[in-house]
Amino acid sequence: MTLFSIKSRTPLNTSFLLQPMENGATKKISSEATKRWHFGPNDLLSAAGGRSIRGIIYKIIDNVDEQGPRPMVPLGHGDPSVFPSFRITTSAEEAIVESLRSAEHNHYPPSVGLLSARRAIAEHLSEKLPYELSPDDVFITAGCNQSIELVATSLARPGANILLPRPGYPMYETHCVFSNLEFRHFDLIPERGWEIDLDQVEQLCDENTVAMVIINPGNPCGSVLSYKHMEKIAETASKLGIMVIADEVYNHSNFGSKPFVPMGVFGHIVPILTLGSLSKGWIVPGWRLGWVVITDRKGILKETKVIDSITNFLEISADPATFIQAAVPQIIERTKGAFFERIVNLLRATAEMCYDKIKEISCITCPNKPEASMFVMVKLELSLLDGIIDDVDFCMKLSKEESVILCPGSALEMKNWLRITFAVEPSALELGLERLKLFCRRHEKKQSK
Amino acid sequence: MTLFSIKSRTPLNTSFLLQPMENGATKKISSEATKRWHFGPNDLLSAAGGRSIRGIIYKIIDNVDEQGPRPMVPLGHGDPSVFPSFRITTSAEEAIVESLRSAEHNHYPPSVGLLSARRAIAEHLSEKLPYELSPDDVFITAGCNQSIELVATSLARPGANILLPRPGYPMYETHCVFSNLEFRHFDLIPERGWEIDLDQVEQLCDENTVAMVIINPGNPCGSVLSYKHMEKIAETASKLGIMVIADEVYNHSNFGSKPFVPMGVFGHIVPILTLGSLSKGWIVPGWRLGWVVITDRKGILKETKVIDSITNFLEISADPATFIQAAVPQIIERTKGAFFERIVNLLRATAEMCYDKIKEISCITCPNKPEASMFVMVKLELSLLDGIIDDVDFCMKLSKEESVILCPGSALEMKNWLRITFAVEPSALELGLERLKLFCRRHEKKQSK
Ligand SMILES: Cc1ncc(COP(=O)(O)O)c(C=O)c1O
Ligand SMILES: Cc1ncc(COP(=O)(O)O)c(C=O)c1O
Repeated sequence: MTLFSIKSRTPLNTSFLLQPMENGATKKISSEATKRWHFGPNDLLSAAGGRSIRGIIYKIIDNVDEQGPRPMVPLGHGDPSVFPSFRITTSAEEAIVESLRSAEHNHYPPSVGLLSARRAIAEHLSEKLPYELSPDDVFITAGCNQSIELVATSLARPGANILLPRPGYPMYETHCVFSNLEFRHFDLIPERGWEIDLDQVEQLCDENTVAMVIINPGNPCGSVLSYKHMEKIAETASKLGIMVIADEVYNHSNFGSKPFVPMGVFGHIVPILTLGSLSKGWIVPGWRLGWVVITDRKGILKETKVIDSITNFLEISADPATFIQAAVPQIIERTKGAFFERIVNLLRATAEMCYDKIKEISCITCPNKPEASMFVMVKLELSLLDGIIDDVDFCMKLSKEESVILCPGSALEMKNWLRITFAVEPSALELGLERLKLFCRRHEKKQSK
Repeated sequence: MTLFSIKSRTPLNTSFLLQPMENGATKKISSEATKRWHFGPNDLLSAAGGRSIRGIIYKIIDNVDEQGPRPMVPLGHGDPSVFPSFRITTSAEEAIVESLRSAEHNHYPPSVGLLSARRAIAEHLSEKLPYELSPDDVFITAGCNQSIELVATSLARPGANILLPRPGYPMYETHCVFSNLEFRHFDLIPERGWEIDLDQVEQLCDENTVAMVIINPGNPCGSVLSYKHMEKIAETASKLGIMVIADEVYNHSNFGSKPFVPMGVFGHIVPILTLGSLSKGWIVPGWRLGWVVITDRKGILKETKVIDSITNFLEISADPATFIQAAVPQIIERTKGAFFERIVNLLRATAEMCYDKIKEISCITCPNKPEASMFVMVKLELSLLDGIIDDVDFCMKLSKEESVILCPGSALEMKNWLRITFAVEPSALELGLERLKLFCRRHEKKQSK
């Protein structure tokens, strides 16, 4: 678990978490060095970087007590690749070995991605669509985070704004801040299975709104949107004159009863950019291979030159390794069926375990049983707890006393909620949830017993 | 040579090359779609992307006549990885195979890079420095192009400007445009072996200048700077209060008599960011693995919080694959000695062949015999040619008539010069140069014979 080896990383800017108004980089610096030298930090980067989940999780990990319970249980972020049960089939790894050994892919990749990879992704995603995607509809990125960067950058015209879900995935806010693209939050409604508040979307939208983002299956809520609700999203967006950005990075992590419907199904109603990657479905986030796919039956994105911005972005931004791109067709081919089945069963079991255990903890409530992704959002009942100020305080104390890491809702614009990852080795999850229960019991108000 | 397979790529914006003032994206768009929908292109991206060499070279390749001489000879860009003579030792490829098969590196990488890779690069580069680099001085990037993005982004405070070499590597200008970092050009002087005009640097610099960029060994000039000249660069920069960005991506491609001196040697005089990658030394640009290294003996970059901007940038930007990072120590270990020797000998031979052939062509003159990198800059004597308007016209006609691709100097801010790559298979180079000679002869003015 190299990500969490405290010694192997440099300190990251997480100060905003505890002192939101005192971000170091915005303070006036004044020293001998700043008088003698002309250069200094770019404050925009510090404003954008400070929002990342990575930074917050690091802060919480830093609070783990060296003498605390072992092993540390990381339920704060979504990367089960370090656990043996989640390992990708070795034959998919061998696809990269073959690509590398051929020495045919040591060259620079085309900026939009290797044709064979684009074709394989087009075919793979077309299986669930009423129409065939063409390789030209697919743009290869260095992971879905770069797909998000592509979206924010390509759409950031002066004055434009974009609608983002709350709770959501903070990388959107990060890249909006960095690209000077104003963002506005619409709410997901826990009482309605985390459906989107579409009335609010209509209220937030003005003539400078260019797009709305949906994350389905949902991070952080573990929810899946219904066909009917998605159709309404498409119709609303079309009426408003905005495109839909569909983050479907968890499209293979759907273990509940609701079927997953790709947003692209509604590409005849509204232009859609679908974002995805190998990271979550194939459990290889370290391979850094993602995509942006266009479903736009009427060619609107071409006519409005959004496609030009996408290709321009890709021309000047980082590429994933060519030999990994070249292996994509075989990676997809060799993981069909059995592999996905194994992972989905595993996620179903761990989600179930998580949901059941939470029911035993009185200060935490879960409005919806998770049906997909790797996460569940739960509400913290602060009134039942003694000496816990808020969600961040809860997570910091939990990490210190029990070496269990959770993601505070504040990091996702949902104060006093918690995001729990169930995508870990079952034995680790059991351990972590048991310690969470002990912690909550210890901190419960006496009178409430 | 997938990069040049005309069918496998989407059209790129190269219009600026032939109609510099009529960039499509800045034209007012007006159609049904733009009235109905709120979104449109980001003009900044189009302004930045239009400057890339990739786009220009694609344009020239598009002009190759299907019926023209075969094979097409690509002397326009620096990627010899497709030629058998330039293949990396297979044991270095096996380092990646081992890393991948261990399944220990499928996880997300730390944003600043894997510690083992940082340490290996620190040790490797320390060999030529008077002091030891620490792993903390090394930041891993997805190739040197991303290192350039990191530099432009981290230094782009409002109002700041940076000094860039002319001729140079256009990715600098691209990222400056995109980051709103003003750039100013200083000249490299052909009569002085492409040394920097330091008087001009002093004139260009003002209190908002934050850095100057040097590319050494030089792209596009094939030159190597002397210790004395570099010391003067460091002293000038220190006096001016600016840092030095040293692009040393060609540090292993030095085959002449002048020794290569890393800029970091002068880290006690001025803060230095050294940029590099595996791409050119190890001939694997498709692996997308680069770095930014800090030599700053007085800790000025930390004090002025430039380091914070660098870590913030890395936290929100694309990462190279974790398993490639994990293989870096073995890649470096297994290519020591014999591999570099083979490549250097090959480059020396092809550079020699190139220089000798150019001497036989009267309308092209070469002010300096190349000593390093993969390129040489030559001057076009338009007065000796009939019906050739300028360097771009020369390259377009050469590609049509002879299927030989060169990079026009205009793309590097040097109108009516040409950049020729000699880093190709010797047999291909011979063929290409012979056709270039035929072409020049055919277009020479009659009276000049
Ligand atoms: C909703 C969502 N989108 C995108 C990403 C980024 O995925 P990738 O690893 O492909 O960059 C994540 C990762 O956690 C995510 O949760
Ligand atoms: C001077 C210079 N810097 C940087 C680069 C980019 O190298 P990389 O392949 O590591 O992105 C190049 C590539 O041609 C170059 O010539």
